[in-house]
Amino acid sequence: MTAPAPAPTSTRELVLDDSWAYGAGVLHGGWLLETIASVALEATGHPHPLAVSAHYVAAPRLGAASVEVEPLREGRTVGSLRARLAQDGRPKVEVLLSAGTLPAAGTAPFLIDAAPPSLPSPQDCLLHEMPSGLPRNGILENLEIRLDPATASWTRGSFGGSAEVAGWIRSSSGRVVDPLFLLTVADALPPVTFDLGIGGWVPTVELTVLLRCQPVDGWLRVVQRARSVHGGWLDEECEVWDSAGQLVAQARQLAGYREPSA
Amino acid sequence: MTAPAPAPTSTRELVLDDSWAYGAGVLHGGWLLETIASVALEATGHPHPLAVSAHYVAAPRLGAASVEVEPLREGRTVGSLRARLAQDGRPKVEVLLSAGTLPAAGTAPFLIDAAPPSLPSPQDCLLHEMPSGLPRNGILENLEIRLDPATASWTRGSFGGSAEVAGWIRSSSGRVVDPLFLLTVADALPPVTFDLGIGGWVPTVELTVLLRCQPVDGWLRVVQRARSVHGGWLDEECEVWDSAGQLVAQARQLAGYREPSA
Repeated sequence: MTAPAPAPTSTRELVLDDSWAYGAGVLHGGWLLETIASVALEATGHPHPLAVSAHYVAAPRLGAASVEVEPLREGRTVGSLRARLAQDGRPKVEVLLSAGTLPAAGTAPFLIDAAPPSLPSPQDCLLHEMPSGLPRNGILENLEIRLDPATASWTRGSFGGSAEVAGWIRSSSGRVVDPLFLLTVADALPPVTFDLGIGGWVPTVELTVLLRCQPVDGWLRVVQRARSVHGGWLDEECEVWDSAGQLVAQARQLAGYREPSA
Repeated sequence: MTAPAPAPTSTRELVLDDSWAYGAGVLHGGWLLETIASVALEATGHPHPLAVSAHYVAAPRLGAASVEVEPLREGRTVGSLRARLAQDGRPKVEVLLSAGTLPAAGTAPFLIDAAPPSLPSPQDCLLHEMPSGLPRNGILENLEIRLDPATASWTRGSFGGSAEVAGWIRSSSGRVVDPLFLLTVADALPPVTFDLGIGGWVPTVELTVLLRCQPVDGWLRVVQRARSVHGGWLDEECEVWDSAGQLVAQARQLAGYREPSA
């Protein structure tokens, strides 16, 4: 007996506005991932994203775009889909998504070999704001990000040399935390390159987010680390913990950077 | 000025033989990933895979298969491709690949915040062999895997309860280490679930491998860890270090498991 053929490919038209843009139109990778995943998820009967992988092919611009969703297989425990954000017929962000059911909040893990970052309280952390003179940043208009001062020496004009940034994140508008929101949050901290004294744009080549547990609402604790900054490429791994102390998302990206001239 | 359109989609027919199969035909996920990536890489002018993401849609069987490769964009520093292993018109493994140029072996990293696993010498490690009575394992016919005894208590019939497995890996046939080989190696250690006393099949849902440096030839040191084993899903992250002490690959997968009944 063969499985039924999956649903046909469908296309959704949408408009990318500047709500989450940096400056005049650089769109936030995490928000793009959430936007694409939310369309893809409608084409499966499984409720949650389990793993979402994106390769950023070219920077989308503001304006009309389409999201093409191709269901690959609708299995009993996992639904697999491919999705593409395109403009003028050219792929901009290519995504694979495996959907299923996340453990319910409060379910004890069989094993957890990790701990949430130890942070000062939100009021004792630094509200992440753009210094005056820099372009506006849509991420900071949509999210309240409070950075652990110990990991943000660059905000004081020096460089700690640490490849770690940590802080608290919540929605500025009171949006409730759900699995899709975690896709945005997993790419929301400033890049670890800031504290290394590496300036400039850090374009994401690839970003994969694993969702691990249904989150509860409240402040999220987020920590981002690089293991290797090497020859123009760096990895950033990100953990997101919810206010109940559950590990709710693990992300890793490969990004590019330009080494400061000696 | 717009970029030239990428090359058209192409399809390669191939036959999946049982060289890398477990038992009667369960094919190794890492070897499948390398097989697909090696076909995809021919469709770009960039020499190395930088990031390769696979979602395992359904288990392929032995026999005829096709690999469809769709170039998404051929940029100056990165080429982006989508590839699909299919049988009878159904997707089995769906892959995204970003290609570029890896740092040359011996290039000093700007920052490295990781260390190779500390292991006994290969001759003081355990040759990983299948216990008699179990099906043959193609991985162990193609690779010499020598496990750190401290992380392999399950080979002695007990369970260490550790979510880490480490060891040495090289080709059994003298194949030289290259970036594509690392895709196979990044999924070659036994699952961490063995030492947790979780038996049974651990199917990979998603596997992403980041390649970080051109490897030198010789024994590879490989370590695999789970951070969270929770409600039927676990992550396994894997680091591969070459014989010159370079971090050459970082992988992470999401896999399924069945919790032992209490």
